[in-house]
Amino acid sequence: MSRLSDSRFAFQGALGAFSHCAGQLFAGQLQCADLAAYVPCQNFEEVFKTVADGGTKYGVIPLENSSIGSIVANYDLLWTSQVVIIGEVAMPVHHQLLGLKGADCSKIAQVYSHPAALEQCRKFFARMPDASPIAHFDTSGAALYVSRKMDPTVAAIASELAGAEYGLDVLEKNIEDYPHNRTRFGIITQMDSGGRQANLLPDPPYKISFAVELPHQPGSLAKLLNRLAGLEVNLTKIESRPIVESPWHYRFFIDMQLDGQDQDSGALTVLKDSSDKYKLLGRYRPWIDGD
Amino acid sequence: MSRLSDSRFAFQGALGAFSHCAGQLFAGQLQCADLAAYVPCQNFEEVFKTVADGGTKYGVIPLENSSIGSIVANYDLLWTSQVVIIGEVAMPVHHQLLGLKGADCSKIAQVYSHPAALEQCRKFFARMPDASPIAHFDTSGAALYVSRKMDPTVAAIASELAGAEYGLDVLEKNIEDYPHNRTRFGIITQMDSGGRQANLLPDPPYKISFAVELPHQPGSLAKLLNRLAGLEVNLTKIESRPIVESPWHYRFFIDMQLDGQDQDSGALTVLKDSSDKYKLLGRYRPWIDGD
Repeated sequence: MSRLSDSRFAFQGALGAFSHCAGQLFAGQLQCADLAAYVPCQNFEEVFKTVADGGTKYGVIPLENSSIGSIVANYDLLWTSQVVIIGEVAMPVHHQLLGLKGADCSKIAQVYSHPAALEQCRKFFARMPDASPIAHFDTSGAALYVSRKMDPTVAAIASELAGAEYGLDVLEKNIEDYPHNRTRFGIITQMDSGGRQANLLPDPPYKISFAVELPHQPGSLAKLLNRLAGLEVNLTKIESRPIVESPWHYRFFIDMQLDGQDQDSGALTVLKDSSDKYKLLGRYRPWIDGD
Repeated sequence: MSRLSDSRFAFQGALGAFSHCAGQLFAGQLQCADLAAYVPCQNFEEVFKTVADGGTKYGVIPLENSSIGSIVANYDLLWTSQVVIIGEVAMPVHHQLLGLKGADCSKIAQVYSHPAALEQCRKFFARMPDASPIAHFDTSGAALYVSRKMDPTVAAIASELAGAEYGLDVLEKNIEDYPHNRTRFGIITQMDSGGRQANLLPDPPYKISFAVELPHQPGSLAKLLNRLAGLEVNLTKIESRPIVESPWHYRFFIDMQLDGQDQDSGALTVLKDSSDKYKLLGRYRPWIDGD
């Protein structure tokens, strides 16, 4: 396979979406930024399917955001899809007010974006009583809409990359209420038939993600975590997720940081022993800012 | 206080929102449905503030949905607000296509709703290629918009209650893709200065919700859960939530079902011993369908 086809990233949204930005950061880390290409998908299912079918080498999926929590649809898709997490990216989310080149910020009457992004910019709207927030399906799609509308009183809230993609000016920078808003993304790739990608061990320390369904009896989660604690692994995330087919029963998604092979094989033994079902979702280097 | 002022429920959204429906179910259980009144609020912060200030006796807040996961903004507000959970309601979410009275379903050209609701009705839009989904801030607000627009080619996706509130017809019933979609709501009330509501014990078995911040060392969550498991309590939910001020440190939100006072005081002792900080969020009867 050529290096070019090795550097395609599927993501949900239009060009300029925050997942697209995250893909660029990861490509930079892989030192393939110049060759990387980005493939927009309509929804998360399409991202997973594109990657599982080999349509792109990589997919970028948001996993959790400090304001809105876990993007649970993607956890469910990790459980059901033939993909494996091979990297993560954690990135601040900055919202830009984007308008036509030369537009006057004080004349903006309508601002399009996803409701969650509009909600994260309340202080901006409090300062700009003549600007009405209008709901759109996604942030980058709102920027595309504004670029086509050709009306200097219409703006979008989206990423700086979306502004660059659609030739819009940043009329006001970083208008989000909470500057510490961050999103963590997973980078997924196809699971080969032998599950080999899943079994590659990155240089330690690395993270391991897995999902488990536990026997429905008091203390089963505690027993699992207690045995993991005995291995002195560092638990970095736990999320309970209702099992759709079985209301109010839960599947647990767990991330841990490991020091190497001994902890790794110990953790897998614990998973096999303690759960009704489990799935190893991937092993990968933890994201370090400025990587 | 009169019985009337005792039966006011604050909720987020316009009349007819799913939280309004949940408030009605809870009022039915309290046998005060005929006297209950419902107070729409613009956002979740306003619901918590209204209840904490005594503006209404109760508030209704969505806590988790089987498709979109936990509504983490409300978990954060439970941590910071002077309120306590005194009940829960678990309810199926059914989406109705609402239009003007006598409108012809096959002539609908535009369908307004919250992006998440539009997303949950993909099969409907696949069947109706001439109907364009259009994003709106909330489902019940979309129904209100349609009732004012007076255009028989415009429809909304919202609850049956929203249809009744705004005089709209149900043009097509239960158009959601997954019939098992459910939301669990918490019913909150003001925390009195002595924390007495929080200390009332419902008839067993009952649920207890709390939040904890644990020492940042390997195994601290396992130690806590292990001691709780020793009490033979039934853990029904666990959610890790990043602490905004302290990136990638977590607060845990835990629900358990208890058999009575011994388990209850045992659990409180464990919380005091094992955590840096904890908050008891409430004790309440588990919701039973058809209650």
